[in-house]
Amino acid sequence: MEGNAFTKFIFMLKCNRPGSHLLDGVFLAALRRMREKDERLKLRFGSLPLINLKEERNSMGIKIGILGYGNLGKGVECAVRQNSDMELAAIFTRRDPKSLKVRTSGVKVLHIDALERMQEEVDVLILCGGSATDLPEQTPKYVAMYNVVDSFDTHAKIPEHFAAVDSAAKAGGKVGIISCGWDPGMFSLNRLYANAILPQGHDYTFWGKGVSQGHSDAVRRISGVKDARQYTIPVPEAVEAVRNGATPELTTRQKHTRECFVVAEEGADLARIEHEIVTMPNYFADYDTTVHFITAEEMERNHGGLPHGGCVIRTGKTGMESEHNHVIEYKLALDSNPEFTAAVITAYARAAYRMNQEGAKGCKTVFDIPPAYLSAKSGEELRAHLL
Amino acid sequence: MEGNAFTKFIFMLKCNRPGSHLLDGVFLAALRRMREKDERLKLRFGSLPLINLKEERNSMGIKIGILGYGNLGKGVECAVRQNSDMELAAIFTRRDPKSLKVRTSGVKVLHIDALERMQEEVDVLILCGGSATDLPEQTPKYVAMYNVVDSFDTHAKIPEHFAAVDSAAKAGGKVGIISCGWDPGMFSLNRLYANAILPQGHDYTFWGKGVSQGHSDAVRRISGVKDARQYTIPVPEAVEAVRNGATPELTTRQKHTRECFVVAEEGADLARIEHEIVTMPNYFADYDTTVHFITAEEMERNHGGLPHGGCVIRTGKTGMESEHNHVIEYKLALDSNPEFTAAVITAYARAAYRMNQEGAKGCKTVFDIPPAYLSAKSGEELRAHLL
Repeated sequence: MEGNAFTKFIFMLKCNRPGSHLLDGVFLAALRRMREKDERLKLRFGSLPLINLKEERNSMGIKIGILGYGNLGKGVECAVRQNSDMELAAIFTRRDPKSLKVRTSGVKVLHIDALERMQEEVDVLILCGGSATDLPEQTPKYVAMYNVVDSFDTHAKIPEHFAAVDSAAKAGGKVGIISCGWDPGMFSLNRLYANAILPQGHDYTFWGKGVSQGHSDAVRRISGVKDARQYTIPVPEAVEAVRNGATPELTTRQKHTRECFVVAEEGADLARIEHEIVTMPNYFADYDTTVHFITAEEMERNHGGLPHGGCVIRTGKTGMESEHNHVIEYKLALDSNPEFTAAVITAYARAAYRMNQEGAKGCKTVFDIPPAYLSAKSGEELRAHLL
Repeated sequence: MEGNAFTKFIFMLKCNRPGSHLLDGVFLAALRRMREKDERLKLRFGSLPLINLKEERNSMGIKIGILGYGNLGKGVECAVRQNSDMELAAIFTRRDPKSLKVRTSGVKVLHIDALERMQEEVDVLILCGGSATDLPEQTPKYVAMYNVVDSFDTHAKIPEHFAAVDSAAKAGGKVGIISCGWDPGMFSLNRLYANAILPQGHDYTFWGKGVSQGHSDAVRRISGVKDARQYTIPVPEAVEAVRNGATPELTTRQKHTRECFVVAEEGADLARIEHEIVTMPNYFADYDTTVHFITAEEMERNHGGLPHGGCVIRTGKTGMESEHNHVIEYKLALDSNPEFTAAVITAYARAAYRMNQEGAKGCKTVFDIPPAYLSAKSGEELRAHLL
């Protein structure tokens, strides 16, 4: 901490303790020590305006660690740059750190094992691994040492994951926010708010138009397929009907269609590939699916991105005779699914840090977090400008 | 509390203290006393599973009081019926209580003065008065005695209102939630979430199509006007441009148009009325306004409702080169503005009650409330069904 921030800090202290110029030296020493031992500082200078120490610490930056440098980790790297109260402390990887080409100059790249001893340098560790095998192991492990945020999305296993993270977090005195992103995440929040407001109503969630990585992978596993991209597309008539206040019972087929772009190996039997796709159980059999065979060049040119989005709609009734209809809709249109997910997670990293600073510990979801904790702005600023 | 609820309560206690049949009588007495003195009960039976006492108390119903029986108060009356964990305890009015025709059979209707002595019978008092003169006086006054929720919407005076409510609430040990509804309220929340997720972006709020009561009143004040209804209408091209990721700088005129339906007095000078409307400063001069003269019958038949709605859109960029665009939109289409506002307020009444039960006190806004507190469902249920 230096320059402006330091001047501001001394100014704040003086405002609180007018005339105490001689103390500047003491504070300077104290500030140097802050990075080493925040707790020790609090004990020794317990009577100082600690709220200012905390605020100043924020303006030095919440120190973010990233574990896993795939699409999501890269998204967090971008998001941290947009939040002036954060700094990227280090990127951790299971690979050889030297093999990683990261895009933030000067940032430490460390092997995952280094996490055993980085508690002083990381305020919040963002876990960017997958839900299948990484997070069930990593989140409980690292929440014992760090405040963490993950994007765990295996719906059926959330209770189990919550319990594991909760007990480890409580033992370690840390906050772990799980299942963060847009679905689960912002979509879940909107389902909750809308259900609380309109207890008498119907929920609808439509996904897309967007790339489903799971479905793309499923097509890639078919023999003769070199590459594939699958788009999930909501059926426009279904969305319109719901938006207009109708409460249709929609089958899987009536809600979404699926569109596949496939690069086949030379000489592959295209009819067989198409048949295998459209009849694939769980993934495609319950949907109307169209398949387009394209070249590798077309794939790269037209389908390189990872757009996604969708909407959560709740329609409900109020009035003594349920005579009034209401439609609440939350809609996302995203150029980059991983970067948006990362942006949500990064905002929740701020919440994890702040709640832990105030003494909170244990596992949280988006349902448990007061919205103000996501914002870098103060309560006064929020009330003045966003309320 | 009787019948099923009581049986369930005794069952829960037994589950916690197996074999303690003899205690039933004690609990029965204690339960009777609960309505009188919750705190005294806690002191005397401190070792009992108080969490169950609390839950059981919820299933008896959070006792809601309504102050003011206009459109909003009537909306709260409807909303409470839809929430099985709430009951309407009493409606308070400045008018002669006997003159009020309320629609809930058996509910107490009391003069506002009775609020001096109803603390035992009301868990949350919902203040349904106006922002101009009622709430600045009522909210600080009654939050000293009750948990309260209001819909204060005079934007410039929110800091002042917040401060007054906060100090009274802290002195009384109560929770006061202010500026609740959809704007301020759900729109504010969505501005906050979207700003926290996309720090680099632009905010847009469009209102309508809907009836603006303030503008309707302004037209009614013109000489020669018997009745009037004013609709605020967003300019479709502006909304579409924003939705498509453009970030236009929009003037007042480019965002909304205004449409007035007017019943004139017989022989009134229609041209003069129209001129007075479209040139009225603050209300209409900055907009493209159309005026239609209609009959009283047409007014009643076609313009009897109070629909409203609108959308909050934030567009923003992510990526190392800000190369990806994202659009977050929250949209409401409401048949009844006051009933929807009341539905939001009623959900927040649950939060006020619960937070106060847990020891919180002071003034809160939607920014400060963990979303889970709005729902009657438990954390486990929410995670299982809505996350």
